[in-house]
Amino acid sequence: MLLSLIGYDPVGAWTKTADTADELLTWKNPAGITWINVECLDNPGTINRLAEVFRIHPLTVEDILDTEQRPKTEEFDDYLFITFKAANPSSGLEFEHMSMVITDDTVLTFQEKPGDYFDGVRKRILNNAGRIRRTGVDYLAYSIIDAVVDEYFIILDSLGSDIEEFEDRAVDEKDKNFIQDIQKVKQNLLKVRRVIWPLRESLSLLMHLDSRRVGGEMEPFLKDLYDHIIQAAETVETYRELVAGILEVNLSASSNQLNRVMKVLTIISTLFIPLTFIVGVYGMNFRFMPELEHRLAYPIIWGLMVIIALGMIIFFRRRKWL
Amino acid sequence: MLLSLIGYDPVGAWTKTADTADELLTWKNPAGITWINVECLDNPGTINRLAEVFRIHPLTVEDILDTEQRPKTEEFDDYLFITFKAANPSSGLEFEHMSMVITDDTVLTFQEKPGDYFDGVRKRILNNAGRIRRTGVDYLAYSIIDAVVDEYFIILDSLGSDIEEFEDRAVDEKDKNFIQDIQKVKQNLLKVRRVIWPLRESLSLLMHLDSRRVGGEMEPFLKDLYDHIIQAAETVETYRELVAGILEVNLSASSNQLNRVMKVLTIISTLFIPLTFIVGVYGMNFRFMPELEHRLAYPIIWGLMVIIALGMIIFFRRRKWL
Amino acid sequence: MLLSLIGYDPVGAWTKTADTADELLTWKNPAGITWINVECLDNPGTINRLAEVFRIHPLTVEDILDTEQRPKTEEFDDYLFITFKAANPSSGLEFEHMSMVITDDTVLTFQEKPGDYFDGVRKRILNNAGRIRRTGVDYLAYSIIDAVVDEYFIILDSLGSDIEEFEDRAVDEKDKNFIQDIQKVKQNLLKVRRVIWPLRESLSLLMHLDSRRVGGEMEPFLKDLYDHIIQAAETVETYRELVAGILEVNLSASSNQLNRVMKVLTIISTLFIPLTFIVGVYGMNFRFMPELEHRLAYPIIWGLMVIIALGMIIFFRRRKWL
Amino acid sequence: MLLSLIGYDPVGAWTKTADTADELLTWKNPAGITWINVECLDNPGTINRLAEVFRIHPLTVEDILDTEQRPKTEEFDDYLFITFKAANPSSGLEFEHMSMVITDDTVLTFQEKPGDYFDGVRKRILNNAGRIRRTGVDYLAYSIIDAVVDEYFIILDSLGSDIEEFEDRAVDEKDKNFIQDIQKVKQNLLKVRRVIWPLRESLSLLMHLDSRRVGGEMEPFLKDLYDHIIQAAETVETYRELVAGILEVNLSASSNQLNRVMKVLTIISTLFIPLTFIVGVYGMNFRFMPELEHRLAYPIIWGLMVIIALGMIIFFRRRKWL
Amino acid sequence: MLLSLIGYDPVGAWTKTADTADELLTWKNPAGITWINVECLDNPGTINRLAEVFRIHPLTVEDILDTEQRPKTEEFDDYLFITFKAANPSSGLEFEHMSMVITDDTVLTFQEKPGDYFDGVRKRILNNAGRIRRTGVDYLAYSIIDAVVDEYFIILDSLGSDIEEFEDRAVDEKDKNFIQDIQKVKQNLLKVRRVIWPLRESLSLLMHLDSRRVGGEMEPFLKDLYDHIIQAAETVETYRELVAGILEVNLSASSNQLNRVMKVLTIISTLFIPLTFIVGVYGMNFRFMPELEHRLAYPIIWGLMVIIALGMIIFFRRRKWL
Repeated sequence: MLLSLIGYDPVGAWTKTADTADELLTWKNPAGITWINVECLDNPGTINRLAEVFRIHPLTVEDILDTEQRPKTEEFDDYLFITFKAANPSSGLEFEHMSMVITDDTVLTFQEKPGDYFDGVRKRILNNAGRIRRTGVDYLAYSIIDAVVDEYFIILDSLGSDIEEFEDRAVDEKDKNFIQDIQKVKQNLLKVRRVIWPLRESLSLLMHLDSRRVGGEMEPFLKDLYDHIIQAAETVETYRELVAGILEVNLSASSNQLNRVMKVLTIISTLFIPLTFIVGVYGMNFRFMPELEHRLAYPIIWGLMVIIALGMIIFFRRRKWL
Repeated sequence: MLLSLIGYDPVGAWTKTADTADELLTWKNPAGITWINVECLDNPGTINRLAEVFRIHPLTVEDILDTEQRPKTEEFDDYLFITFKAANPSSGLEFEHMSMVITDDTVLTFQEKPGDYFDGVRKRILNNAGRIRRTGVDYLAYSIIDAVVDEYFIILDSLGSDIEEFEDRAVDEKDKNFIQDIQKVKQNLLKVRRVIWPLRESLSLLMHLDSRRVGGEMEPFLKDLYDHIIQAAETVETYRELVAGILEVNLSASSNQLNRVMKVLTIISTLFIPLTFIVGVYGMNFRFMPELEHRLAYPIIWGLMVIIALGMIIFFRRRKWL
Repeated sequence: MLLSLIGYDPVGAWTKTADTADELLTWKNPAGITWINVECLDNPGTINRLAEVFRIHPLTVEDILDTEQRPKTEEFDDYLFITFKAANPSSGLEFEHMSMVITDDTVLTFQEKPGDYFDGVRKRILNNAGRIRRTGVDYLAYSIIDAVVDEYFIILDSLGSDIEEFEDRAVDEKDKNFIQDIQKVKQNLLKVRRVIWPLRESLSLLMHLDSRRVGGEMEPFLKDLYDHIIQAAETVETYRELVAGILEVNLSASSNQLNRVMKVLTIISTLFIPLTFIVGVYGMNFRFMPELEHRLAYPIIWGLMVIIALGMIIFFRRRKWL
Repeated sequence: MLLSLIGYDPVGAWTKTADTADELLTWKNPAGITWINVECLDNPGTINRLAEVFRIHPLTVEDILDTEQRPKTEEFDDYLFITFKAANPSSGLEFEHMSMVITDDTVLTFQEKPGDYFDGVRKRILNNAGRIRRTGVDYLAYSIIDAVVDEYFIILDSLGSDIEEFEDRAVDEKDKNFIQDIQKVKQNLLKVRRVIWPLRESLSLLMHLDSRRVGGEMEPFLKDLYDHIIQAAETVETYRELVAGILEVNLSASSNQLNRVMKVLTIISTLFIPLTFIVGVYGMNFRFMPELEHRLAYPIIWGLMVIIALGMIIFFRRRKWL
Repeated sequence: MLLSLIGYDPVGAWTKTADTADELLTWKNPAGITWINVECLDNPGTINRLAEVFRIHPLTVEDILDTEQRPKTEEFDDYLFITFKAANPSSGLEFEHMSMVITDDTVLTFQEKPGDYFDGVRKRILNNAGRIRRTGVDYLAYSIIDAVVDEYFIILDSLGSDIEEFEDRAVDEKDKNFIQDIQKVKQNLLKVRRVIWPLRESLSLLMHLDSRRVGGEMEPFLKDLYDHIIQAAETVETYRELVAGILEVNLSASSNQLNRVMKVLTIISTLFIPLTFIVGVYGMNFRFMPELEHRLAYPIIWGLMVIIALGMIIFFRRRKWL
């Protein structure tokens, strides 16, 4: 478990890592904003200690530790609790459970696994970039979620280019695994959707929350964030429709191809089967077959066969089978 | 019919089983919380006696006895009535009708069939584990429903691993019963859904109930419970999409396989049918067939047939059929 | 047209049939509850006379007479109007238009066709069974609708056992009419749904009606009724999903069977077509065919053909076509 | 362009046609109700003159003239504006744009094309049938829309009988155009739906409009009208489901038929292909083929072939292919 | 980057282009209405300068610059912000990001790419056509969005005629790319829908906005605009259904055609395969085949074969395969 703390006020910022919650908390400056980040959930003792200090409800602790917990927002008397899934920047479509507790002057974030998700936010605090140092815990929380949502778009872009590639392959693809690969994309979209939709609800709730913890000047920022998540949700839906379309094209293309192959078979077979019957007739060994003795029989039969073949070709052309 | 009673207050807990309602009720301590559990609904007399004592409306009694009753929550003047379906822990996807009547100081539970559903809750009361002994009937009722919802997740996990197994089999499966097995999973999902959705509504109603029977400190617990049921409902929907995807993959895989088989047939037939015609021609018994007499006719015909065969193979390759 | 009247108060009950409205109305006791039932809508005069007496709006009379009228509930100053469809207990899925007018002390019911729909309710009044004699018009109206809804469940149960039977036949069924029979079930479900859904809306409206005609003590009864209709509606939806699943299984089973048949054809044809070509070759009548003269040619050719056949069988096995 | 005016009060009614708006307006009696009907929208001057007189907003004039305008209801200070589509009674599924402006004492209707849509309403006014002469502009407007909605049902009935006919043809139909004809019905349903749904919204709006232009005694009439349009909308949805079912039956029937044909082919081919190989073998011209010389060889071969054929027939029967 | 300004009051109008924001702003007349149009977003400096002058929130500036931004409406203290997508009149289905900031006396529009989108509006201002010069910023903003929505209909009309063309081709089309072309139309509909739906929400919000920036006399105009966008949205949905129908027709037509081709193959093969077997039998070289010696054997065999062929044709006709 990795505990780290960033404290800041408009004048300065300080950062600290520690091994125990109590050690870390000595660095908390009540006059400034404090952000405590807990990487890994493998030490319940530390989390319980933090819960005690910040008066976090036992159910919230459960939600922090339960990595299957669905994204949600809950307001308690002493804090606002938000949990969501963050995409691991390095490992593609793996989502990780994250929780955030926002008290009056502190933001606590809990990561399921170690990994540097919020480096950008951290740098903006330390370098005093943008407005972050001059604003409260609400803006800090916003910045963190904003970083998470930005990560979603990177994933969606990568899925988008996968889908485009599938689109190009849809017509001529005969690979046995094509359908399965497409289904994998579909499942990934389902996965992303399960991450995005509850966060959307969560943000909607946050926007309409009449809480002293979210200042009025946050409104445009929350709206913007909500807007982004809506855009992500719509992108997922559009991708789902595109994937459905690709499956349709592929199915119909491969059935069309079968049609064409079948037609060639039909025509070749249908041309030769009657001719083979005719040559079979004159291969019979009857003693009394007058035609066999005729001098021109052989060329006449050839002529007959050519006429039959041509007649059938014309018939097929008339029916537009050729 | 099995009647059992657990009574408790912060100081102690006592448990008792009895044969008649009246005998059992002598053990009810008005100062503490009482939980009466009725296993089996085969003795309407006892249930009517309990209904009389706790002033339960005849319609509620009907709902308790009607095992087809849909999950619901109803508030009466004297009690809160909740009915739901519990998964029989031993017999898989069999759901059992359960009802709960919550009065000011008593929780009555009615099980359709005997079976130990609430052993965990009982133990927590008797061992004074957690907060249960220090809280009211509302927390007891919550604990019971929570145990039921936890059971749902076990069922969903088992369905989930079934689905994963089907996913692996989807491409190569040619088993006649595959589709039927998948449909069985679909029907089970339908069944679970019919159990979960009304309970979700029920819990939503319970959360927004302005009742003296559900204390304010219950709010996070109810929210948590509601959250779990939502998660279960979403899992069902995701599983339904996965099953639909499996069916799609299987259908498309088996149709693709047919395509490939058909193509091989086409090619072999189409190669040999014209050649068979040619050998048929020279099997004819016409007296005047000049080719037959020619010294090199036989090797020439072989050469011709090889050329035709090669020509067709090239044609098929050009068309990407091979 | 058949006119009948049942009057009752907590003390007694009386019943009467008559030919004209006026004759019937002399039996109405203003101190008790009166239930007038009109079988058959073929005498508009009588209906208009009743409309006049009970001050029924001309549009309501229209709705009573229009057998295509969709189920609905409407409140007028002088009465409450409910129209619904009742299943004819004898003739299966035939639904009949019924209307009910509830005034302060009278319930009027209008049946499209003669038939004894409400015998149970009538008996409960005459035998003073249950609470019906001690309650008002609202409970009488409830009892009548409850009888109608119970009838729906009988129909649903019969459809349910049909569906189960279809489920068993889905895999092996090759009957030309199977799909058509299933579509008939689907249409029946559509029919039942069109009857149930508007009644659901109607009951929901009734429950939230702030009317002096529906007493407060009716609430649990209406909720119960509403609950039943919801259950019926859900059953219809579940049945629709099951039917869709049966169609899927049948389609996929018959397509799978075609696949298997095709494969056998492919294999037999593909085995014999090349062999037939070979025997054709040595059936040619060229004068100079050195093989023909060879002593061991015939057994060698047989050996060659066996090798080719075995090679192809191995090839098919490798590709898992056998 | 055809301008006509009907004026009436409880005592009398008068009708007039004119060439110009001003000429027509001289016949308007301020004490009674006036209905001005404009057939054809080809003279914007007249419409603008009417707009000026009745203070109609330029956007309303635009909506009157725009025949692509979607049905809607709008309330302005001086009038209520309703636009809808009317079915041309003579030309089947052609819908025509119609608009209605309702001022305090006048109803103006604008028809896209000439045609006698409202003859029934006109006759009721002139013959003083029903309540129309004793009521206000609201009842006149209601009567006009009611006539339009009644026309919808005629169209739906005609579509309904088309669908029934298609249902009968679904199983055995092999007509190339069957699918296309069904799609045409589907498109017509889409068309009707686009006409009905916005009118439904419009009427719903009208019902909840708190306007001095719609009197309280209109409520049951509007409810009735709304009810009719709901019924029409539901009929469209039911028809859509029926059409989907017909397509399903047809597709599945034609695929089943292909299955049966394929099976016959399979069996005949599979029976004769091996036999043809055998007779081919004994058609070879090898000098040393001992069987050929055998006295009973020919009947033995026949016996062998019969045995093979019977064996295959038994095999097919076992597999239930026959 | 191209900066242009149009100023107007009821008396006159003036227009100006400039290179820098400050130069342009000198031409702003505080007494009149000013419309500033920014073509191209490639000069953030200028946009920031404008943001500073008109006190535009940094998030709004971000939304102006983010060409992926979803259409939305936001109200700030100093201005109303609307962003939408405009169809490039020259390049078909390319949509371009546009933003509009409406302050008390100024409308700022930002175009993603250069192009003359609002020429019509500009001309109406300069030529004093219609009411535009006599109204406020709200009417100007309305006119601009109205021009954008009109452009949507041009695109929808073009898609509509594409769809009609596809409809005609659906039955006989065997082109490999047909499905792909249809999918392209589907994707375009998806694209248009993603542009239209958020604008619909945006306009709905605008209509219900209780803002001093949108005067009461704007109501009918906004309603009209909203109405148009609804009509566009409905057209998209109808087109989507039509496209789905076309795909259905095409799929079913090509499968039907395969059926017919298969049947011909079946019949020809099934006719000749048994006959070929018979002629094969009499091509065998057994020494003892009594039939071969018979004088009438040859004509008898021919007769037999004709009888078999006719029998099969009659059998096929009976089964309605011919």
